[in-house]
Amino acid sequence: MSAEDAAALISNGTTVGMSGFTGSGYPKAVPLALAARIEAEHAAGNPFRVSVWTGASTGPELDGALAKADGIEFRLPYNSDPIARDKINRGEMNYFDMHLSHVSPMAWQGFLGPLDTALVEVTGITEDGDLIPSSSVGNNKVWLDRATRIILEVNRWQNPLLEGMHDIYYGTRLPPDRVPIPLVRADQRIGQPLFRCDPDRIAAIVETDVPDRNLPFSAPDESAMRIAGHLLEFLEHEVKVGRMPADLLPIQSGVGNIANAVLTGLVDSRFENLTAYTEVIQDGMLDLIDAGKLRVASATSFSLSPEAAARVNADMGRYRDRMILRPQEISNHPELIRRLGCVAMNGLIEADIYGNVNSTHVMGSRIQNGIGGSGDFARNAYVSIFMTPSTAKGGSISAIVPFASHVDHISQDVQVIVTEQGLADLRGLAPKQRAALIIEKCAHPVYKPMLQDYVRRANEQAYGKHTPTLLNEALSWHQRYVETGSMLPK
Amino acid sequence: MSAEDAAALISNGTTVGMSGFTGSGYPKAVPLALAARIEAEHAAGNPFRVSVWTGASTGPELDGALAKADGIEFRLPYNSDPIARDKINRGEMNYFDMHLSHVSPMAWQGFLGPLDTALVEVTGITEDGDLIPSSSVGNNKVWLDRATRIILEVNRWQNPLLEGMHDIYYGTRLPPDRVPIPLVRADQRIGQPLFRCDPDRIAAIVETDVPDRNLPFSAPDESAMRIAGHLLEFLEHEVKVGRMPADLLPIQSGVGNIANAVLTGLVDSRFENLTAYTEVIQDGMLDLIDAGKLRVASATSFSLSPEAAARVNADMGRYRDRMILRPQEISNHPELIRRLGCVAMNGLIEADIYGNVNSTHVMGSRIQNGIGGSGDFARNAYVSIFMTPSTAKGGSISAIVPFASHVDHISQDVQVIVTEQGLADLRGLAPKQRAALIIEKCAHPVYKPMLQDYVRRANEQAYGKHTPTLLNEALSWHQRYVETGSMLPK
Ligand SMILES: CC(C)(COP(=O)(O)OP(=O)(O)OC[C@H]1O[C@@H](n2cnc3c(N)ncnc32)[C@H](O)[C@@H]1OP(=O)(O)O)[C@@H](O)C(=O)NCCC(=O)NCCS
Ligand SMILES: CC(C)(COP(=O)(O)OP(=O)(O)OC[C@H]1O[C@@H](n2cnc3c(N)ncnc32)[C@H](O)[C@@H]1OP(=O)(O)O)[C@@H](O)C(=O)NCCC(=O)NCCS
Repeated sequence: MSAEDAAALISNGTTVGMSGFTGSGYPKAVPLALAARIEAEHAAGNPFRVSVWTGASTGPELDGALAKADGIEFRLPYNSDPIARDKINRGEMNYFDMHLSHVSPMAWQGFLGPLDTALVEVTGITEDGDLIPSSSVGNNKVWLDRATRIILEVNRWQNPLLEGMHDIYYGTRLPPDRVPIPLVRADQRIGQPLFRCDPDRIAAIVETDVPDRNLPFSAPDESAMRIAGHLLEFLEHEVKVGRMPADLLPIQSGVGNIANAVLTGLVDSRFENLTAYTEVIQDGMLDLIDAGKLRVASATSFSLSPEAAARVNADMGRYRDRMILRPQEISNHPELIRRLGCVAMNGLIEADIYGNVNSTHVMGSRIQNGIGGSGDFARNAYVSIFMTPSTAKGGSISAIVPFASHVDHISQDVQVIVTEQGLADLRGLAPKQRAALIIEKCAHPVYKPMLQDYVRRANEQAYGKHTPTLLNEALSWHQRYVETGSMLPK
Repeated sequence: MSAEDAAALISNGTTVGMSGFTGSGYPKAVPLALAARIEAEHAAGNPFRVSVWTGASTGPELDGALAKADGIEFRLPYNSDPIARDKINRGEMNYFDMHLSHVSPMAWQGFLGPLDTALVEVTGITEDGDLIPSSSVGNNKVWLDRATRIILEVNRWQNPLLEGMHDIYYGTRLPPDRVPIPLVRADQRIGQPLFRCDPDRIAAIVETDVPDRNLPFSAPDESAMRIAGHLLEFLEHEVKVGRMPADLLPIQSGVGNIANAVLTGLVDSRFENLTAYTEVIQDGMLDLIDAGKLRVASATSFSLSPEAAARVNADMGRYRDRMILRPQEISNHPELIRRLGCVAMNGLIEADIYGNVNSTHVMGSRIQNGIGGSGDFARNAYVSIFMTPSTAKGGSISAIVPFASHVDHISQDVQVIVTEQGLADLRGLAPKQRAALIIEKCAHPVYKPMLQDYVRRANEQAYGKHTPTLLNEALSWHQRYVETGSMLPK
């Protein structure tokens, strides 16, 4: 069927569950056709908007095109598309920023409303009618199981050798019938390689041949390398004092360049026989596999640069044995993260002096991406590490602030903070001890005296001395940035 | 051995892991003797302070006496003692407020440092040397397993028929050796009734005959009854539309009078065959058991009024079959809360218009109690409900504020907020939709226009329109309260 005919099956005001996770495995033709249709309807003066559910972020042909057409009424659970972000921050699009592990249970529990259409990219359809998953799994199983109508995009660009890499677990249930998920090691398979799919609900099959949105990685800058250095030193120390095994514990690595720099750092480290239990497989993980250091990477999606995607495609037979892609309800399941004891490493926007972390809201009100899986990992990790350069926007913003303008990760879920300045190990510390250490180790020298001055006055004047806070000054740095373009006083 | 001799085994600067959870099962003699010793040392000009780890809050003979003696250097993971709270809020005592489910794993992981002494109340010691647990389990298993030296208090006041009520699970491990916890129903037993105890490490056994600190419940006031009413209506509606089974799912009920009012409300409801998977067994649960409505209550501790404690003691044989006390690493385990699908109902101090909840910090800086298990339950629950009167301190404080002065539960972990004014069902809503609903349903009429005015101006002026925030006004209500004693402008 043509993408246009398939898009015609989607009505105004309905909800579409789409595949896609960090630019991998999202449908690439039907959303574009839908956007064109929406634009035509709008031009004719007719309302047309849909609710879009996905795995996480997708590509420009999906979020970008639909947002540009003003076609998204409501979006969950994660977005990093700049056009959609802009719409959201102008107040023109409703965005429900969810824990990635909450999506599948909440959809099954009926908390998110009905799902009209599943629009899922696959690598192929077997003779038995099962579906070969694509380069991400995300929430596809849920969408396929729950939607009234199914539209498939079969993308020839995806490597047929992907078949067999996936592990789709069909054992989840609604309570009171939930049972333990039997996974005990990152390299274990507990499901099947293919999606089941009810043929009666397939309304359209569209063929495509379009690459995933693979964004280039910039080479790690000096700041990222220093962050990676502090972190590796920490991990080595933990092994030395016996708090971690020599082959570490399954690593979870967030998105972005710093995360990738840490993985690159591991290539040159003395660690061997590593495993990853994480959301996405980045370039750095390939390097680790090639260096013989990473035994297995379990994730829900690829997130590769064009060169790395080419590398994987050229050698899929070999990489396939070292990689497992799972549904995100499994990759991000609190039960499994706690059991495996993941070492969680995530980025942040700002941390306050007490160790509360903002991962999502610039100046407390503009969404950057969303919480994604960071809450799933941070709260349940063996040790939860957050990393950031100590400043943003050329130094006009301090990443360490008196008071977080939004909180995604409470201090209880943040054991270590690392900047290029140093590493603060916050385990077992009370709030004032945390403040002293975060400022000493992590703050940029330009902001350090300002933070120390705030702490000194808060310790004298605050209403309570457990977590001393100057209420009228707490968010003044952010206010100053909004007004003057810098957190530094003129 | 005498309590004084036992207390003499504890040295300055060491760490003591004590039993005790919400005033049940804490040691009652040795901490008093230790406090006396500390006072004597201080009088003689000698430094003497210890670090105190517990299950949760304890009684005046422990936290109160030791704090009064200025004998606590560091305290974790939860406190509700007024003298200790005051010390903490004056900045004279370090308090590390932890998720209750984090304590045991972090202690085993070596993140909290060494544990010198375990000081644990038990009901008795068997001929084989096993310990019959007392009226709370808390972290006792961990303290007994990890401490260098063990001091036991055998409290005759505890009912010997407690034996058999407990379920102590010995299957937890450090990663990479963790395995699924086999519990799939609230009424299931997966462990053994007694604690193991290495006799070589027992340094002292002290006999006591002292009651638990059982605080009276005040009869639910009209506000609590209305909150319970809204909540029951919600639960009935969820059953009607098929989002919950007719016998609900295991209920988790926080501490305090409102939680108890909800339980009392359930007695007169049409719900039958209920189960509870929770932290503490309150008075209301006994009423539910007596009414034949609660099949089983699984918890880690009792939290009863004196009358209810007498009722349980008088009829222990019968109640014992309907109650299970487990280690708090099991009662609060994310794996189990998510699997069982608990209906979590917890109190709060304030919620902001976007649904971020502060459970711990008055005016952002003074600790009330601590996060306790609320984070374990809220994030992993089937549905997470928070309840509060819409105002505090005689109306001079609004429980619904523009911006939370501290965040314990991020909006993703808060699906429902209830006040005596009404119930806001926040599932699937974006920030601005949440704000409108919380203000409409939950805010007190006196504060509603002020909140609406804030929202209107934030929607116009804020830096971003996703979660509109007026940075220079966000905490101004709190500042006004600190300055004038009321959040209302003069
Ligand atoms: C927090 C997060 C945005 C950081 O991403 P990153 O790529 O390492 O960070 P960058 O330094 O490139 O920052 C991204 C943008 O935020 C801006 N930014 C960073 N810190 C900032 C701060 N304190 N104040 C204002 N803006 C800030 C950067 O300037 C950049 O803006 P630009 O795109 O206009 O240049 C990212 O980690 C994230 O989205 N996290 C939440 C989800 C998550 O953790 N997922 C991991 C998988 S579980
Ligand atoms: C939040 C919490 C303190 C509410 O407890 P409660 O007994 O229902 O509430 P109360 O209304 O009696 O409030 C307790 C005190 O806080 C004060 N308070 C409540 N809301 C307040 C607000 N918004 N601002 C300032 N003070 C407030 C009350 O006035 C009262 O003070 P007082 O002791 O000086 O009279 C309590 O639920 C808690 O400690 N929660 C965290 C731990 C938890 O949830 N455990 C549950 C088990 S998992």
